[in-house]
Amino acid sequence: MFFHRQEMQHKATPDAPDAVYARKLQEVLGGQYGEISVAMQYSFQAWNMHIPGKYRDLVYGIAAEEFGHVEMLAVMIAQLLEKAPLGITDDAVQSDPTVAAVIGGTDIQHGIVAGAGARPVDSMGNPWQGSYITASGNLLADFTANANAEMQGRLQVARLYHMTDDSGVRDLLKFLLARDTMHQNQWTRAAMELQEEGLELLPVPSNFPIKKEDRDVSYEYINFSDGEHAKDGSWASGPTPDGKGEFSYLDGPQSTVPMPPPTHPDSRFYGTTE
Amino acid sequence: MFFHRQEMQHKATPDAPDAVYARKLQEVLGGQYGEISVAMQYSFQAWNMHIPGKYRDLVYGIAAEEFGHVEMLAVMIAQLLEKAPLGITDDAVQSDPTVAAVIGGTDIQHGIVAGAGARPVDSMGNPWQGSYITASGNLLADFTANANAEMQGRLQVARLYHMTDDSGVRDLLKFLLARDTMHQNQWTRAAMELQEEGLELLPVPSNFPIKKEDRDVSYEYINFSDGEHAKDGSWASGPTPDGKGEFSYLDGPQSTVPMPPPTHPDSRFYGTTE
Amino acid sequence: MFFHRQEMQHKATPDAPDAVYARKLQEVLGGQYGEISVAMQYSFQAWNMHIPGKYRDLVYGIAAEEFGHVEMLAVMIAQLLEKAPLGITDDAVQSDPTVAAVIGGTDIQHGIVAGAGARPVDSMGNPWQGSYITASGNLLADFTANANAEMQGRLQVARLYHMTDDSGVRDLLKFLLARDTMHQNQWTRAAMELQEEGLELLPVPSNFPIKKEDRDVSYEYINFSDGEHAKDGSWASGPTPDGKGEFSYLDGPQSTVPMPPPTHPDSRFYGTTE
Amino acid sequence: MFFHRQEMQHKATPDAPDAVYARKLQEVLGGQYGEISVAMQYSFQAWNMHIPGKYRDLVYGIAAEEFGHVEMLAVMIAQLLEKAPLGITDDAVQSDPTVAAVIGGTDIQHGIVAGAGARPVDSMGNPWQGSYITASGNLLADFTANANAEMQGRLQVARLYHMTDDSGVRDLLKFLLARDTMHQNQWTRAAMELQEEGLELLPVPSNFPIKKEDRDVSYEYINFSDGEHAKDGSWASGPTPDGKGEFSYLDGPQSTVPMPPPTHPDSRFYGTTE
Amino acid sequence: MFFHRQEMQHKATPDAPDAVYARKLQEVLGGQYGEISVAMQYSFQAWNMHIPGKYRDLVYGIAAEEFGHVEMLAVMIAQLLEKAPLGITDDAVQSDPTVAAVIGGTDIQHGIVAGAGARPVDSMGNPWQGSYITASGNLLADFTANANAEMQGRLQVARLYHMTDDSGVRDLLKFLLARDTMHQNQWTRAAMELQEEGLELLPVPSNFPIKKEDRDVSYEYINFSDGEHAKDGSWASGPTPDGKGEFSYLDGPQSTVPMPPPTHPDSRFYGTTE
Amino acid sequence: MFFHRQEMQHKATPDAPDAVYARKLQEVLGGQYGEISVAMQYSFQAWNMHIPGKYRDLVYGIAAEEFGHVEMLAVMIAQLLEKAPLGITDDAVQSDPTVAAVIGGTDIQHGIVAGAGARPVDSMGNPWQGSYITASGNLLADFTANANAEMQGRLQVARLYHMTDDSGVRDLLKFLLARDTMHQNQWTRAAMELQEEGLELLPVPSNFPIKKEDRDVSYEYINFSDGEHAKDGSWASGPTPDGKGEFSYLDGPQSTVPMPPPTHPDSRFYGTTE
Ligand SMILES: [Ca+2]
Ligand SMILES: [Ca+2]
Ligand SMILES: [Ca+2]
Ligand SMILES: [Ca+2]
Ligand SMILES: [Ca+2]
Ligand SMILES: [Ca+2]
Repeated sequence: MFFHRQEMQHKATPDAPDAVYARKLQEVLGGQYGEISVAMQYSFQAWNMHIPGKYRDLVYGIAAEEFGHVEMLAVMIAQLLEKAPLGITDDAVQSDPTVAAVIGGTDIQHGIVAGAGARPVDSMGNPWQGSYITASGNLLADFTANANAEMQGRLQVARLYHMTDDSGVRDLLKFLLARDTMHQNQWTRAAMELQEEGLELLPVPSNFPIKKEDRDVSYEYINFSDGEHAKDGSWASGPTPDGKGEFSYLDGPQSTVPMPPPTHPDSRFYGTTE
Repeated sequence: MFFHRQEMQHKATPDAPDAVYARKLQEVLGGQYGEISVAMQYSFQAWNMHIPGKYRDLVYGIAAEEFGHVEMLAVMIAQLLEKAPLGITDDAVQSDPTVAAVIGGTDIQHGIVAGAGARPVDSMGNPWQGSYITASGNLLADFTANANAEMQGRLQVARLYHMTDDSGVRDLLKFLLARDTMHQNQWTRAAMELQEEGLELLPVPSNFPIKKEDRDVSYEYINFSDGEHAKDGSWASGPTPDGKGEFSYLDGPQSTVPMPPPTHPDSRFYGTTE
Repeated sequence: MFFHRQEMQHKATPDAPDAVYARKLQEVLGGQYGEISVAMQYSFQAWNMHIPGKYRDLVYGIAAEEFGHVEMLAVMIAQLLEKAPLGITDDAVQSDPTVAAVIGGTDIQHGIVAGAGARPVDSMGNPWQGSYITASGNLLADFTANANAEMQGRLQVARLYHMTDDSGVRDLLKFLLARDTMHQNQWTRAAMELQEEGLELLPVPSNFPIKKEDRDVSYEYINFSDGEHAKDGSWASGPTPDGKGEFSYLDGPQSTVPMPPPTHPDSRFYGTTE
Repeated sequence: MFFHRQEMQHKATPDAPDAVYARKLQEVLGGQYGEISVAMQYSFQAWNMHIPGKYRDLVYGIAAEEFGHVEMLAVMIAQLLEKAPLGITDDAVQSDPTVAAVIGGTDIQHGIVAGAGARPVDSMGNPWQGSYITASGNLLADFTANANAEMQGRLQVARLYHMTDDSGVRDLLKFLLARDTMHQNQWTRAAMELQEEGLELLPVPSNFPIKKEDRDVSYEYINFSDGEHAKDGSWASGPTPDGKGEFSYLDGPQSTVPMPPPTHPDSRFYGTTE
Repeated sequence: MFFHRQEMQHKATPDAPDAVYARKLQEVLGGQYGEISVAMQYSFQAWNMHIPGKYRDLVYGIAAEEFGHVEMLAVMIAQLLEKAPLGITDDAVQSDPTVAAVIGGTDIQHGIVAGAGARPVDSMGNPWQGSYITASGNLLADFTANANAEMQGRLQVARLYHMTDDSGVRDLLKFLLARDTMHQNQWTRAAMELQEEGLELLPVPSNFPIKKEDRDVSYEYINFSDGEHAKDGSWASGPTPDGKGEFSYLDGPQSTVPMPPPTHPDSRFYGTTE
Repeated sequence: MFFHRQEMQHKATPDAPDAVYARKLQEVLGGQYGEISVAMQYSFQAWNMHIPGKYRDLVYGIAAEEFGHVEMLAVMIAQLLEKAPLGITDDAVQSDPTVAAVIGGTDIQHGIVAGAGARPVDSMGNPWQGSYITASGNLLADFTANANAEMQGRLQVARLYHMTDDSGVRDLLKFLLARDTMHQNQWTRAAMELQEEGLELLPVPSNFPIKKEDRDVSYEYINFSDGEHAKDGSWASGPTPDGKGEFSYLDGPQSTVPMPPPTHPDSRFYGTTE
């Protein structure tokens, strides 16, 4: 159950409207690694989780914060759009190149569809979609997905930081950067704790009987390109992070098998055959 | 530049056709974490990489292997579909419940669209899409994405292992499980090496001047749910994995700000105002 | 800002697992008119609203409830999936036709991707997407969209009611049906109140100077099919709901204009021309 | 059966080409609430309708008109693109800022893909999709969807009106605005007539036995946010539009239930459990 | 301008309802090569065409027929769904395996969303989308696209023919097969006529100055796989269909160039560099 | 099995960076008819093919070349983005209109998401998707699809040629134009050879017993529009390309049937009925 309060975790007001930047900011609202993605990802992980207690509480505790981040960005975008120009003519463009930039640089649907409001889309106008999220029920896999999401997210916010010098926008970005720092550390730490407690280990899923896999090729780096330096990495020799083997290096596959013969399905599929 | 050889890394022939299982196997061919995803993800990471040498060679070396995995699964699926029934009537269903299962359990487009062939879709028929992949240019973020992809991928293959007892299919899955074990270890190790060499550290991106973020909230676990156990985890107290702080625990946000007033865009957007 | 509480508005526990029904229930969780849609729609309407006070408070007040509905359905689906069969062989199908139904009737990704968990998709496996929602800034238009969403939603829940006889599931559906009744009434009433207060009238947007539209054709029913009964409706004669005209009926367009000549763009587009 | 005539309901020729505006106009051709959407929505409602006579004739009669609106917009867009520049260099931009606007403001696929032609996409380049439409078989729900579509559509055309001063374009928009006025009135009136004839009432679907829903919560406004003014609306007290109850106001949920315990699916799904 | 008549080109009534087959038939209604695709493809080609006369009249003349085909299939699907079961319990499945097939084999949204009506989706439930169609302005390219569409379409109908023995359905399919035969012949002939009249030749676009392309490699079959028989085809030696060269065969690329060095963008993109 | 070599078929280095052009070039990398599409299309055709020998070797041999084309374009795009500006302020725009063009003309995700790298999307930012490809198992249909793909592809490259004067970019485009010339010729020739060998003929699929189709309408051009010139083409009289009939011309359908009565599904679908 969720409750809403008409307050925000942090101030989200720009110094001045900037319709072009509003579009850029959509990336971290409604993009692959935007706030909608993490809010929904953590929520579904919570609803699907198989163990009560600290891990589930952790995921619930962050999910709701992320919905608040969605809100801060949406409210910020609406304010950035507050003076979005509506009627633009050639004359206006001629006298002010900035207007030319605005014409091309804005999300057109911000105006026509949302009336100068935020939208659930990324910076190129692609709608947010459920296939962005990950909730597998396996916590080591999912916490790794979460760590990645917070890394990609913070990277995008850092890039956005340099695309404006509006102090109000930057003030919000500084806050989001810090929360992403927290969340990167948190998911990294939670993934460690899972392993320390033996709930899950490398390779994921660790409960699958490892002897059923083809152990001969479990630690071979097989080079299918011709770069000579891949063998210099610690992924090509030495102990493996899962503690169960030694990396080795192969310059291409050692053995291969011929392709099976072509299939011959029912002739009423009307495929071409001899 | 890619070269194709009409051989395979491993045998990919089922004992017997099984159209229902063919559909399930589409998940690891064309799903969010299927082989097309990793092949394309590693390829784009290679093409976008900013440093020559072992890391780039590593990514190129694996990318090409993954295209071969796509091929093995496609060829396997085509064989599983070889005896896919085409004409099904009520009579057939009445006399054999298995046929009923086949009717419902198959990917209908396997027959109507591909003529009993593999397709670039997941197990529910959603086409593979470019938004599944990640290639940000930041290697620690991207190698974490890669580790996650191999974890989710191996998890799915492990689940699929129990959905068949065809020894030919299982033989291929054992091979894929082992390669996923390798790739989980490899990306984990490569992420470590990046950090050991100081190329990238937590929090990602580590070159962003950390003092520009709002350091007051960089290590606070703020609980936006009412689960009491979130504070028991090592993400709520103790040193942070980035080595730069100490976790603390807050039972909800410490301070908040009021929401900004509603916006008033140009009246010709015809939004509703007082 | 959103806060989560680990309680629910209503009980959401089935009498028994039912993986096939779990898939059907996805429609009202992650479909076009599912709970994610209304939760996101009302949220974006709130964030984009241009007037403070009762209308904005209304939208905020319902949005958060809807996120709780998402949760109840997700938790219900996870429980319906709790005994989802994983390993199915021909033998099993032969001895029990129900298993055949389960094979075909389940969402395959429920198992392979989510490990028997809920997903942000509809009943056919299409991911939820941002383009399902409407938030235009014009409240009469948007409240009409909301009324429609609650009508379509209640209709779907009513259909789902008859697809199970599990009393636990039905108990939840009864609650959701009642809340949809409330929300239909509420949006209908709110749309009336907007008009009573003169904030917005038909035709939407009412502030656009109506004399600028081509008033000659503003109230003509023009029949482009050959059905003779369309003229019998109250949309073909009598006063119009906007109070500004009289309907009239035309058996096809009264006047037409020739199509403009074909275009001749730059020859370097290499289109075919004479 | 559809017949085409090489004439148009209204003139659709711009005074002058304008490639940037051509892109904007795509929204009402191929967007969520564009003409393709209403043409397809009304068509599918007709094909799925369960009663012969005036309602079916109505839907058929309008559907075909809407395909003609698609055509007028497509033809207009092609003419707006007639002088779309193809070869643009830095020099050109330097000497004329308008060219800069054109570079950014155009739909790139208008040139590269369609050779200066219209496309079935919205103003941000998202392809039109079948999930935009609604055809449920319940006419009160669907006519409400139609009223909403015409409201959103007219709102978008009104916004577009102010984004150009081309008198040819405005002439077409004036016509479309008037037809949207008609269609808003018409669907509103048809929804009333359905109710007057008792074919369908609030709450939709009215034939579902209302006593089966949880009547205790059928008319409660439950405030899940902290806005104090939601209770001032006529949706929080007084009679309900369906004529079957009285609204009441609750400051949050009156009773709640604990969440059910986490699920424990088959261990071979390899989710994380204690 | 389109006019609708409440008649059909051919009878479209099944002998008996069949909800499973209704889903299959969706492929040729709303799939990649379904009737919506050809109706929209030919329409956009007409609206974008640069020459008046017989080619434009041809495209207009067929486009409208195809919308009628959409209608016949939609009406057929609605009738196939007329007895779609709504309430299914385990008991029902136990006593009748056919019911099991129906559970799995139906499009779930046919019932829940459309109330036993047709939908603008393919047989796996993917919504029709604008990216299925092709309208480039170059008629030889587009007529080749059209020939392909009619080939793929007829192939799918032929497959569907064997998936039912309902004589009413087969009667409609026989008609559609014949019309696809016509349209294959027609587009093939129209493509020939374009070339005979010199409006467009191979290679498309023929007006691009061919000497600007890298003529050294214009007719080389370069084998990037190791199949030995590719050189036996008439694409590896002999005259080329465009009449401007001779095919030659190369066993792999004759010359290659090294990859360019990695890029080094602005450091504030925070990619990983040395 | 695929092997990668860190070399390229042709040089792919621009004279100078050009972020706006980088976006345009995405069309032929990740668009409907871009290199990813042909690489995947030919690969799936190979994996699904039912006959060994020259046709299968042909498809394999080209598929791998196309993956190399993807690579050349990706590497080119990364270089075009190398100096993509990150921090843009109003001041910069004021002093240089080119910057305004860059703001609007760039793919925003090139910077924020990929850190100045290539992406698997088209020029409007739509992700590449599996539904772009065709692999039906019927070779005449599929080779026609391939010929179309190479025509549309070469057309797009020709258009792109005129959108830049960078000699490095043009050098690569000249190479791609030549390869598209080869591939158009090759698929055209292969389609002829299939017919010469009798493996497949018009109409596709030729093995479907043609007498089962409704031969009365197999060669009629039925004009559903009012263009008078459609009857002047060789598709309206004379022999048909399949050699089995004579075209005839009809000014509209000769006979029609009434629409079937509306359906009446189970009342618990709650559709509107009398
Ligand atoms: Ca966040
Ligand atoms: Ca793999
Ligand atoms: Ca709800
Ligand atoms: Ca219209
Ligand atoms: Ca057709
Ligand atoms: Ca190519």
